[in-house]
Amino acid sequence: MPARDTVEIGLNRFARRGYDLDEVSIVPSRRTRDVDDVSTAWQIDAFRFEIPLVTSPSDAVVSPATAIAVGQAGGLGVLNAEGLWTRYDDPLPVYRQLREAGAEAPPPVSLLQQVYAEPVKADLIGARIKEMRDAGVTTAVRVSPQHTELLAPTVLAAGVDLLVIQGTIVSAEHVTTQGAALNLKSFIADLDVPVIVGGAANYTTALHLMRTGAAGVIVGVGADSFSTGDAVMGIRVPLASAIADAAAARRDYLDETGGRYVHVIANGRIETSGAIARALACGADAVQLGEPLRAAREAPASGVWWDSVAAHPRLPRGGTSAPVPARGSLEQLLLGPAETSDGRTNLFGALRRTMAKTGYRDLKEFQRVDLVIGGAPAGDSAD
Amino acid sequence: MPARDTVEIGLNRFARRGYDLDEVSIVPSRRTRDVDDVSTAWQIDAFRFEIPLVTSPSDAVVSPATAIAVGQAGGLGVLNAEGLWTRYDDPLPVYRQLREAGAEAPPPVSLLQQVYAEPVKADLIGARIKEMRDAGVTTAVRVSPQHTELLAPTVLAAGVDLLVIQGTIVSAEHVTTQGAALNLKSFIADLDVPVIVGGAANYTTALHLMRTGAAGVIVGVGADSFSTGDAVMGIRVPLASAIADAAAARRDYLDETGGRYVHVIANGRIETSGAIARALACGADAVQLGEPLRAAREAPASGVWWDSVAAHPRLPRGGTSAPVPARGSLEQLLLGPAETSDGRTNLFGALRRTMAKTGYRDLKEFQRVDLVIGGAPAGDSAD
Amino acid sequence: MPARDTVEIGLNRFARRGYDLDEVSIVPSRRTRDVDDVSTAWQIDAFRFEIPLVTSPSDAVVSPATAIAVGQAGGLGVLNAEGLWTRYDDPLPVYRQLREAGAEAPPPVSLLQQVYAEPVKADLIGARIKEMRDAGVTTAVRVSPQHTELLAPTVLAAGVDLLVIQGTIVSAEHVTTQGAALNLKSFIADLDVPVIVGGAANYTTALHLMRTGAAGVIVGVGADSFSTGDAVMGIRVPLASAIADAAAARRDYLDETGGRYVHVIANGRIETSGAIARALACGADAVQLGEPLRAAREAPASGVWWDSVAAHPRLPRGGTSAPVPARGSLEQLLLGPAETSDGRTNLFGALRRTMAKTGYRDLKEFQRVDLVIGGAPAGDSAD
Amino acid sequence: MPARDTVEIGLNRFARRGYDLDEVSIVPSRRTRDVDDVSTAWQIDAFRFEIPLVTSPSDAVVSPATAIAVGQAGGLGVLNAEGLWTRYDDPLPVYRQLREAGAEAPPPVSLLQQVYAEPVKADLIGARIKEMRDAGVTTAVRVSPQHTELLAPTVLAAGVDLLVIQGTIVSAEHVTTQGAALNLKSFIADLDVPVIVGGAANYTTALHLMRTGAAGVIVGVGADSFSTGDAVMGIRVPLASAIADAAAARRDYLDETGGRYVHVIANGRIETSGAIARALACGADAVQLGEPLRAAREAPASGVWWDSVAAHPRLPRGGTSAPVPARGSLEQLLLGPAETSDGRTNLFGALRRTMAKTGYRDLKEFQRVDLVIGGAPAGDSAD
Repeated sequence: MPARDTVEIGLNRFARRGYDLDEVSIVPSRRTRDVDDVSTAWQIDAFRFEIPLVTSPSDAVVSPATAIAVGQAGGLGVLNAEGLWTRYDDPLPVYRQLREAGAEAPPPVSLLQQVYAEPVKADLIGARIKEMRDAGVTTAVRVSPQHTELLAPTVLAAGVDLLVIQGTIVSAEHVTTQGAALNLKSFIADLDVPVIVGGAANYTTALHLMRTGAAGVIVGVGADSFSTGDAVMGIRVPLASAIADAAAARRDYLDETGGRYVHVIANGRIETSGAIARALACGADAVQLGEPLRAAREAPASGVWWDSVAAHPRLPRGGTSAPVPARGSLEQLLLGPAETSDGRTNLFGALRRTMAKTGYRDLKEFQRVDLVIGGAPAGDSAD
Repeated sequence: MPARDTVEIGLNRFARRGYDLDEVSIVPSRRTRDVDDVSTAWQIDAFRFEIPLVTSPSDAVVSPATAIAVGQAGGLGVLNAEGLWTRYDDPLPVYRQLREAGAEAPPPVSLLQQVYAEPVKADLIGARIKEMRDAGVTTAVRVSPQHTELLAPTVLAAGVDLLVIQGTIVSAEHVTTQGAALNLKSFIADLDVPVIVGGAANYTTALHLMRTGAAGVIVGVGADSFSTGDAVMGIRVPLASAIADAAAARRDYLDETGGRYVHVIANGRIETSGAIARALACGADAVQLGEPLRAAREAPASGVWWDSVAAHPRLPRGGTSAPVPARGSLEQLLLGPAETSDGRTNLFGALRRTMAKTGYRDLKEFQRVDLVIGGAPAGDSAD
Repeated sequence: MPARDTVEIGLNRFARRGYDLDEVSIVPSRRTRDVDDVSTAWQIDAFRFEIPLVTSPSDAVVSPATAIAVGQAGGLGVLNAEGLWTRYDDPLPVYRQLREAGAEAPPPVSLLQQVYAEPVKADLIGARIKEMRDAGVTTAVRVSPQHTELLAPTVLAAGVDLLVIQGTIVSAEHVTTQGAALNLKSFIADLDVPVIVGGAANYTTALHLMRTGAAGVIVGVGADSFSTGDAVMGIRVPLASAIADAAAARRDYLDETGGRYVHVIANGRIETSGAIARALACGADAVQLGEPLRAAREAPASGVWWDSVAAHPRLPRGGTSAPVPARGSLEQLLLGPAETSDGRTNLFGALRRTMAKTGYRDLKEFQRVDLVIGGAPAGDSAD
Repeated sequence: MPARDTVEIGLNRFARRGYDLDEVSIVPSRRTRDVDDVSTAWQIDAFRFEIPLVTSPSDAVVSPATAIAVGQAGGLGVLNAEGLWTRYDDPLPVYRQLREAGAEAPPPVSLLQQVYAEPVKADLIGARIKEMRDAGVTTAVRVSPQHTELLAPTVLAAGVDLLVIQGTIVSAEHVTTQGAALNLKSFIADLDVPVIVGGAANYTTALHLMRTGAAGVIVGVGADSFSTGDAVMGIRVPLASAIADAAAARRDYLDETGGRYVHVIANGRIETSGAIARALACGADAVQLGEPLRAAREAPASGVWWDSVAAHPRLPRGGTSAPVPARGSLEQLLLGPAETSDGRTNLFGALRRTMAKTGYRDLKEFQRVDLVIGGAPAGDSAD
């Protein structure tokens, strides 16, 4: 692995220098192009999507119905197989409770801890997947690494198209003194469906996860604006650098396998169309979005936000937030038109325009766009 | 093109390091000079101006009347040939509507989208240009690259002095699958009037635009404080670096043509006299100002601000702002005297003083002034 | 001493580049591990602790009772031998007075100056130490360098286990024209109990303090969020760099002595579990915490905070703060479970989880974890 | 002149990297010392001062009475020979007017412009100097470069001890087409009293001013927290770098003259004892303070603040501020004791302590103290 910028923080103690997405910007190059000549499509395994969107498996934004709506808009909705929809036969009263508790202030963590104490039911997993399949969209559910072996048979039996194994931090080598750990490599080898796995935070972990046979690797530890993983665990992943490192792992793995292309899916505080464009420009193949979708009229929690790790029984660390007002339908959020200019509506229409203004035809080409570090974000003195 | 500082944001993914205008400052050198011995004049083609000011073609600040007032104060007013004055026979009721909608909060984008849906009328273009010509000032109007071929004949027939072809991002090579794109080079070669074209964001685009035969190139993507292009499109142009790069293109083009000097006009969040001085110190020949002029008593929108791109029907991205109170006449804003010390009045008198305090006689010399990076802006803890 | 990054601030005047703890973050590496397989234990001299915690000797958080509670939770409580508990037979009315004065705003410095004007009583030192010893925990008290020779006999006679000689800034070579200065080296050589000494701010001072025979060296000048030592004295110690420098001194001293390992204890604005993890990752063996403990239900000042140097009669410079509400018992703050996700509860449970997620088994291994510089802290736009 | 860090802001356009005082901090070194063994004295020409303080010639803080009080406390008070005390026989009603206008908000610039329109009277200059001389303190007044030749005879005839020729930016070579400019070198050569001259912003200007024969050179352009010179003129002088550069000029001039030591006096946003210590640590011999003294009970404007350049008739640019409450007597502000810990009282007692804690005996030695760049100022999250 070639060396990136390092800093000697103290005598003989080194740190790499990492960059966040909002430190990086796109520079228009010598050519421009018509918006209508640009494609934002991507394909993972046999599944093609018109927009490079994978949803976070957050109960605040993904119900079976919104997963279907995302699929119909051209993206991939991911339902949490360990969330409210598989713990409760009817989760609507729980949503109502959280919405009421979170109307003025973020919903209290203790309430999250309480509603997630209800056990997951296998039959509900099957029913939810069936509902999505019946709508004709590509189906995907998320399981945690800890429960993958337990839940995977149920999930697969229900006919899911893609399996997402996602924890805050996932490694290809989990060490335990309590029996055998999940061996991702042999597990994935035995599966018939493609697997997306993550999050990974650097080149090495991304490469090792690629070697498990995964079709996609999630890069980033899932921090949204409300996340407190930094304060709680001291862990921070400057996402622009992590994406570029994972893209390097993708190139190296492509070379070592003579042609297996593993998709890099960026996850972490990607909240505007500008951030989506930056993430792809740094080398991602798609982005995983959660918080931005809560402003959709269809969002099951009506604009309240929480991340699943916020419900951890002993060490909650994801963020929560009081509701934002709806900005339009899910389709409008994703495909426009926008009636505001804050980068939070027409998320993928804006991406298409950025690609046109910089002269690129497709996402793979766009990963080579010129980047610049520096410059204050415009609008910071806005009224 | 020689290499500037680059940063490896991740493995094998590089970004250039760019600097914003407010990161750069001017350092007084060994000599001082009398204010009265300093000239701020510049000349483009046959047209000489006492102050290096080109207005943004924003309807919020430029009417035929204010274009005339700017000309009389020594600058160049640019009217938008695709703005309110060419869409409406009498735009005053539209201004009133926007002012009322924007009295307390920025005017809603949806209202902007609505009033700009009215089509442009060729006869109004002619009438507006005639009004300005009759006042005896140098006349200039702006057309968008998309409508240049359609509107240019009307504009030229009306006897304009300078044509400004301006979009957020303009390249010398627009690619389209829908018929033929505008060929700027042959278009400009056929014209009798000098052309200013832009915005460009880097050395290469600036050089290519210079090679089209333009008399001036606008550098920057037009971001004011209220702009959201960064959030919407992920595009940011650290302006100090972009200006210096364009100045390098100007030198190289001067050399390759054996003497054609193309003027560099800086555009983007230049809102104080300090910022004007910095932009020229970085290598610009003139600055394009919009938002600062809205505080003139004559401003047609009475202090409300919007950028034309804020009215885009599907992806609005320019900023809008509720009104600021008038700070004086347009002449006082440009030439003083000031009764406040915030850098927003006597914009070009202040420039003259900076040149005197650093010992330079004219703008071309002043482009060599010493610069420093770093230091917090003074006044940031002001009451 | 090898050179670290230096900056030429002006001609021939150099400064080293230092990093604060919150500029540094931990990067998950290729391996993960079960939380239950991780140990946070450390041992200094004959004393073993389950968590790497040494308390600040601040009266705001340490009474004999809370020192005992800290010991029972696995850490080391340090009582100030020159604080309220040794100046007043019954300090409770003084605490009440400070609490009332500090209910809305920070308690006034003049009141602190007044209550600390009461002299220290030797018999109270003995009584307080006895109370802690009787509870069966490891006992430690802090004396200032100025009063070490005067108070040490009393402290030692009372049977203390560890002696902490701590001032804001302590050197191994104090120069005075007023009689003889304390010779730390000969003083420590004559003692039967291990000594922790500090604060030190760089490699050289840390190394010299190690050479006095100390068992532990405190690194940092004790700044908490409310500290004003920077404004008052112009002194700042970027803690990540200071810890790494002291760890280098520890290695060099280990080598020069053929095996004496002196513990590095980090002190200064460590207020979250994330900051604890960073401090240890930079090379510390333990952390000294004050302000975070004031939120314990048992805190003697009920959430009001002051640092002892805030009471200085002529140049107060430590911070003070109005009370925060209690977040739970001391044990809950240290060991969880947490019901909030702000990094201020379950401080050492979070550390254990960070170690697990990065694949380390014990603290000594964890000092090698990968670090990254850069990236904005998550959550900074939280509601 | 050796090269300092430079940055290529754009192609072939370079800027030096400068550092502000608050980016630089002092690092305690291996030795500590008794406070009572430290001297803060300095001497310029025949005049010795116990504290390295020169006041700004600001009417907001310097009257003849406060100049005397500063002298009695060990510093040098500088009265503005072109200020209120020499324009008005009785300036007290003017002060009252400014205080009333500035009670809630900063006094309006237009009022400043108005009261400073009153002409300077030669006889009042003489009377004010006599008043200060009669009190037995070292006397100094400031004249502007423009009026030096006109006013100097009066000032000298009145028996001033030190002459301060100070403008925002002063060069040794002023170019004018209007008659002859002041030739500082021959002017100073003819004088019997030592001259302090400035402000200078870099090595070259400082060196040239030293060559005029000045006894002291003021470094910095006088920006306080309320200054807007940056916004108005685009000029910024990162002070730590400017001081270090001037100190290099001092060394080079000392060498070229075989022993003439010209004092460097730092000026610009030095508002706390911490900043004073930093300025001296960077190489200054003394500091020029204005704004911090307005909190003295004796301040003639009762806490209102304005800088003289704020009254400029066409381009006001200094700051103004509504009053702060008094923090104590002038003596207490300078020498303590402090009852707050914000670095704004006991300014020079704090300096003495910083010198003691870093082991230095006198100011000249202290200029070698170790520096560090980086680290957030403590206290920024204070309640």
